[in-house]
Amino acid sequence: MISFYPGPSQVYEKVPKWVKVAFDEGILGINHRSGRFEKMLAQVYQLLQEKLGVPADYTISFVSSATECWEIIAQSFVQESSFHLYNGAFGEKWCRTTKPLVAETAGYKFDFQEGLDLDQVIIPEDVEVICLTHNETSNGTQIRPSLVTALRENYPDTLIAVDATSSMAGVALNFDQADLWFASVQKCFGLPAGMGILICSPAAAARAEELQRRDHYNSWLKLRDNAIKLQTHLTPNVLDIYLLQQSMLERKPIDKVEEKVFTRYQQWSEFIPQLSGVDWLVKQEALRSRTVLALEGDPATLSALHQKAEVAGFTLGKGYGSWKKSTLRIANFPAMKRDAIDGLQTALLT
Amino acid sequence: MISFYPGPSQVYEKVPKWVKVAFDEGILGINHRSGRFEKMLAQVYQLLQEKLGVPADYTISFVSSATECWEIIAQSFVQESSFHLYNGAFGEKWCRTTKPLVAETAGYKFDFQEGLDLDQVIIPEDVEVICLTHNETSNGTQIRPSLVTALRENYPDTLIAVDATSSMAGVALNFDQADLWFASVQKCFGLPAGMGILICSPAAAARAEELQRRDHYNSWLKLRDNAIKLQTHLTPNVLDIYLLQQSMLERKPIDKVEEKVFTRYQQWSEFIPQLSGVDWLVKQEALRSRTVLALEGDPATLSALHQKAEVAGFTLGKGYGSWKKSTLRIANFPAMKRDAIDGLQTALLT
Repeated sequence: MISFYPGPSQVYEKVPKWVKVAFDEGILGINHRSGRFEKMLAQVYQLLQEKLGVPADYTISFVSSATECWEIIAQSFVQESSFHLYNGAFGEKWCRTTKPLVAETAGYKFDFQEGLDLDQVIIPEDVEVICLTHNETSNGTQIRPSLVTALRENYPDTLIAVDATSSMAGVALNFDQADLWFASVQKCFGLPAGMGILICSPAAAARAEELQRRDHYNSWLKLRDNAIKLQTHLTPNVLDIYLLQQSMLERKPIDKVEEKVFTRYQQWSEFIPQLSGVDWLVKQEALRSRTVLALEGDPATLSALHQKAEVAGFTLGKGYGSWKKSTLRIANFPAMKRDAIDGLQTALLT
Repeated sequence: MISFYPGPSQVYEKVPKWVKVAFDEGILGINHRSGRFEKMLAQVYQLLQEKLGVPADYTISFVSSATECWEIIAQSFVQESSFHLYNGAFGEKWCRTTKPLVAETAGYKFDFQEGLDLDQVIIPEDVEVICLTHNETSNGTQIRPSLVTALRENYPDTLIAVDATSSMAGVALNFDQADLWFASVQKCFGLPAGMGILICSPAAAARAEELQRRDHYNSWLKLRDNAIKLQTHLTPNVLDIYLLQQSMLERKPIDKVEEKVFTRYQQWSEFIPQLSGVDWLVKQEALRSRTVLALEGDPATLSALHQKAEVAGFTLGKGYGSWKKSTLRIANFPAMKRDAIDGLQTALLT
């Protein structure tokens, strides 16, 4: 079965080969305090800078999941106030997760069919961090780069945190336009689930220094203290770090990867009208995610499509939350093979 | 290189084969909300009950690391007071990690050469949880089962939490004598790092219900709510769960595994006197760990042993913390192969 679920999803086909090499070379049991591990970590940081365009002065940390980043941000970069802009289930959950941890947590929910109009939002001046979901995996919307830039211009002195769980490593991100970025490796990175990546700007680092919050095992200052020494605060997912190293070594720079993702999105856009009974969930083309495609239809039609895919050896993603029965989702992640996409499309048309 | 580091350490040699199967069968990209995943999770729970002797009414959760369990316990099972019994670096770190989270956190440090004499410890009556490190990885001591039993008898109504990071799945644990047990898969489980296992008694579950603490993303009640539905609260390390399933299917019951570990410990005990210039760090045989062997010697002698091992393709563990330069450590975990142990011993004698 090849999985088009929007994460965990199909991993790079070389993963088993890399694992074999990792075992043979003793990396699966490598000590995370050894020089060999430190060298690997240094190279991974450098590769993420080179291939994804992460600025050299941003700090990269490996954590257990993107969800953990919601908590790390609330507990390390914020004292009293967090403001959340969202249009779907994951952005809302981030807000809900922050509430018990940050006294003044507020949110603004915008219509996912309309997009975010910054002129309509009143963000209190003393807000410490503005939280935005770059790619809302539940409804298949994606924020365009210009919106992050506009947010930065409007709030030059407020930290901006961006959940890029399902888009980082799939589309180009303007890292310098926000302060905290995070993602999970089981999405556009094409790796087995079990690790998150947190990227932090110098401004956010300075704020963490000011607050000096070290009350949790995963407090960012502890992550950073270790990162400087090429260490990790707890035994990390060494295998995923190794797979990240190998996959980044073979990866093209992000603008080339984005080009591939965009081209495939275009092809899906031409293909979808051929399917009767389904339509894009998101009506405005400009608001649609390029990495997670959400289609709506009546349950019987969607069920038939799931069935056709299944028989041909492909798993489609179900809908999420309130869209569970009225949508299906398709991952358009870089690790998907061209022939798998062709195979799936053929199966859906039969 | 074959690693005798006491975790991350040598993984089961079948790991690469299992990963290949996992890829071919689409498990590496499996969705953690699918029926197939739920079935796998149900079997893993059952296997841990069967092979390790976890009582059927204890709840098993998969988390990111044993270190995370320190925090989950402080944030889910305790309101005001935590008491820590320790003799080394990891037990002390657990106490230190709990301090900012639990108002009344106290500790009692006992001499690692003397062992814990319960008659000497005054634990305040209103303490909510007593925390004990079963296997102190830093100095190579291990608690005997009778001590946990005595603790249970002395404090029948207090929760007892046991850090079994480097011993669970290597030696038999009396799970019913304590309430919270946790470990990491990179030690006696012989799997790649990146996952922890938390095991919780009905009494601890009742206490968590009473406290109703749901303020963190990894609050135990959230873990439990998901576990009941054969789900996980966040995208788990699916690969490690799969490898756990495969390794447990092939594993002998814990009393047989313990027998192997004990026999090998005996053989190490006969071997060590043949090495000149080193001796056990822990002088009383009864206090020594059966899974993590710590030897002391002068830095030059230890360095020579590291060197001899290295040349022959084996990595020995360095000392930890204050014992960094005066000890070396050797993992005696179940995944070590007999011929690797023979090879290492031969190398050390040359």
